[in-house]
Amino acid sequence: MKPRLSQPCYFSFLCACVLAWMASPNTASAQQYDPLPSWNEGTAKQSILGFVSRVTSPGSKDYVDPASRIAVFDNDGTLWPENPMPFQLAYAVDVVRSKAAADSNLAEDPMVQAALSGDFEKLLAGKHHDGLLQLMAMTHTGMTTEEFAASVSRWMATAKHPKYNLRYDQLTYQPMQEVLALLKAKGFKTYIVSGGGADFMRVWSERVYGIPPEQVIGSTARTSLELRDGIPVLVKTLDHVFVDDKEGKPVAIHQFLGRRPIACFGNSDGDHAMLQYTTIGNPKPSFGLIVHHTDDKREYAYDSTPKSTGRLVEALQEAPRRGWTVANMELDWRTVFSR
Amino acid sequence: MKPRLSQPCYFSFLCACVLAWMASPNTASAQQYDPLPSWNEGTAKQSILGFVSRVTSPGSKDYVDPASRIAVFDNDGTLWPENPMPFQLAYAVDVVRSKAAADSNLAEDPMVQAALSGDFEKLLAGKHHDGLLQLMAMTHTGMTTEEFAASVSRWMATAKHPKYNLRYDQLTYQPMQEVLALLKAKGFKTYIVSGGGADFMRVWSERVYGIPPEQVIGSTARTSLELRDGIPVLVKTLDHVFVDDKEGKPVAIHQFLGRRPIACFGNSDGDHAMLQYTTIGNPKPSFGLIVHHTDDKREYAYDSTPKSTGRLVEALQEAPRRGWTVANMELDWRTVFSR
Repeated sequence: MKPRLSQPCYFSFLCACVLAWMASPNTASAQQYDPLPSWNEGTAKQSILGFVSRVTSPGSKDYVDPASRIAVFDNDGTLWPENPMPFQLAYAVDVVRSKAAADSNLAEDPMVQAALSGDFEKLLAGKHHDGLLQLMAMTHTGMTTEEFAASVSRWMATAKHPKYNLRYDQLTYQPMQEVLALLKAKGFKTYIVSGGGADFMRVWSERVYGIPPEQVIGSTARTSLELRDGIPVLVKTLDHVFVDDKEGKPVAIHQFLGRRPIACFGNSDGDHAMLQYTTIGNPKPSFGLIVHHTDDKREYAYDSTPKSTGRLVEALQEAPRRGWTVANMELDWRTVFSR
Repeated sequence: MKPRLSQPCYFSFLCACVLAWMASPNTASAQQYDPLPSWNEGTAKQSILGFVSRVTSPGSKDYVDPASRIAVFDNDGTLWPENPMPFQLAYAVDVVRSKAAADSNLAEDPMVQAALSGDFEKLLAGKHHDGLLQLMAMTHTGMTTEEFAASVSRWMATAKHPKYNLRYDQLTYQPMQEVLALLKAKGFKTYIVSGGGADFMRVWSERVYGIPPEQVIGSTARTSLELRDGIPVLVKTLDHVFVDDKEGKPVAIHQFLGRRPIACFGNSDGDHAMLQYTTIGNPKPSFGLIVHHTDDKREYAYDSTPKSTGRLVEALQEAPRRGWTVANMELDWRTVFSR
């Protein structure tokens, strides 16, 4: 007859086993786990992993308390593409197209025609980019914030990117999604800091990136409080426009967060100022990364060529001196899109 | 000889006990636990507890998902006093006093004399409150955001409230600290939405209220990015002043959060618009509370008397119709200050 454990003792033995297993270091599985599987092995991947390990390992001389682990991400060109045009501009053009189809006077407006024919030089002409402002006024003002959000949602559910024939929200960069997830798992608060409109991004940022609306900083204009049917609503205007780009990014980061980030991810000279603000003179350990668009097969290749959106010259030049990591999309990214 | 448990079995028995204890509902202690001990029993206390229970109990018809549990709190008069003057104004006067002591020209300036003698009517005279703006320019501009934060920290560590002879940060309302802690424990994100300066409050909000700087919304002016000794810094200005009061509060809430709060705590007509925005037409269950200053023994008693700061007429009048809870400081609060 075999020795038998009594029922209660068997139960408590099981409990002990579970507790012991929970406490044991599972070395083999720790070594195999790769939080950045879409990154090829190389200095870019190692610099990200190294920084995250340094600032989050208790006892590390570079340890940063969780409350100060703030990371900021540009959106267009950093988390998803900005070609052939920023996706928010594609939204505006699509909205104007449907308005023009219903209103022949509008269809004859020269700026509307410029928008619909893709003549963006005409839209951007003049000191104040009058055509672009007119396009924004037609598509981003007059409605409540809820109505605008509903319109963006509808568009995002159906509109397709001209090159990939996929919905725009299927085109986020998988390697950057992995960076977002890694930082979140390591106690970082991740923020978008983008030239795009805050109201546009907040509609889908939580679903697409896991970033809640209150962690989205973008370009803004002041809304106007009105009563409609007895209910207080906020109506979109173009008053007090704030463009969250270039020097505006550190200004907005301070306005919204009140503290310096310790990690900054961008892709263009529009992110240069926030890369500097994050990494130069920061009393805490800090990290900067530039996504370099080098992959004209899978995505787009550009840096010095575009005139505005996506131009990358000064920041790239300064990167080695500042120790900013440059992620070469063609070489460093095993996969590009999240789909 | 007594029966003995072998060492490993004794250990596993202990583990089982611990697990069993962790799993058991501890009814007696649950009944005794009071998250709001500084609130006297009454409708105000019950309305807070009832709302929190309704929106956080799984299975409740009013259940709200954790991501949408946003609560906003006015600061002056809601989380700490606003008498005999808003504490940030006391800071400005103290800074001007020390500047005037070192500069006789400044000491002769009529607006400086008005500030130092407490002649706030003179400071507030004119359509643009020129005296107050001058005082703000002298005390809130020209320095970097870090220098300003250091100055506020020094002041907060030493300055004393004239009535209580306690540091200002010892005068937060204990009942409201308990509400903040309760909401936080129940998965709410708590935000300050105050007419006070964001840069002023963010210096101490985390230490004093457990509210991190990025959850503080206040009045702002745009900073200016400069290089000083090669380091990018933000210099305070009075450009693009935004006053986060009255209709400005819903506008700022949308700008910072991009969604409607479900709970709002205020004390004056300056909070009327955000009480309305939180509770009227909100598709989610919502809650509004007004702190009514009725206690001239322990604190101050006022509502319709003050001309600006702290005036409470319209919001109080609308409270019954909207179902807003009115907390009567004298009757509902067992303790006033946190000390």
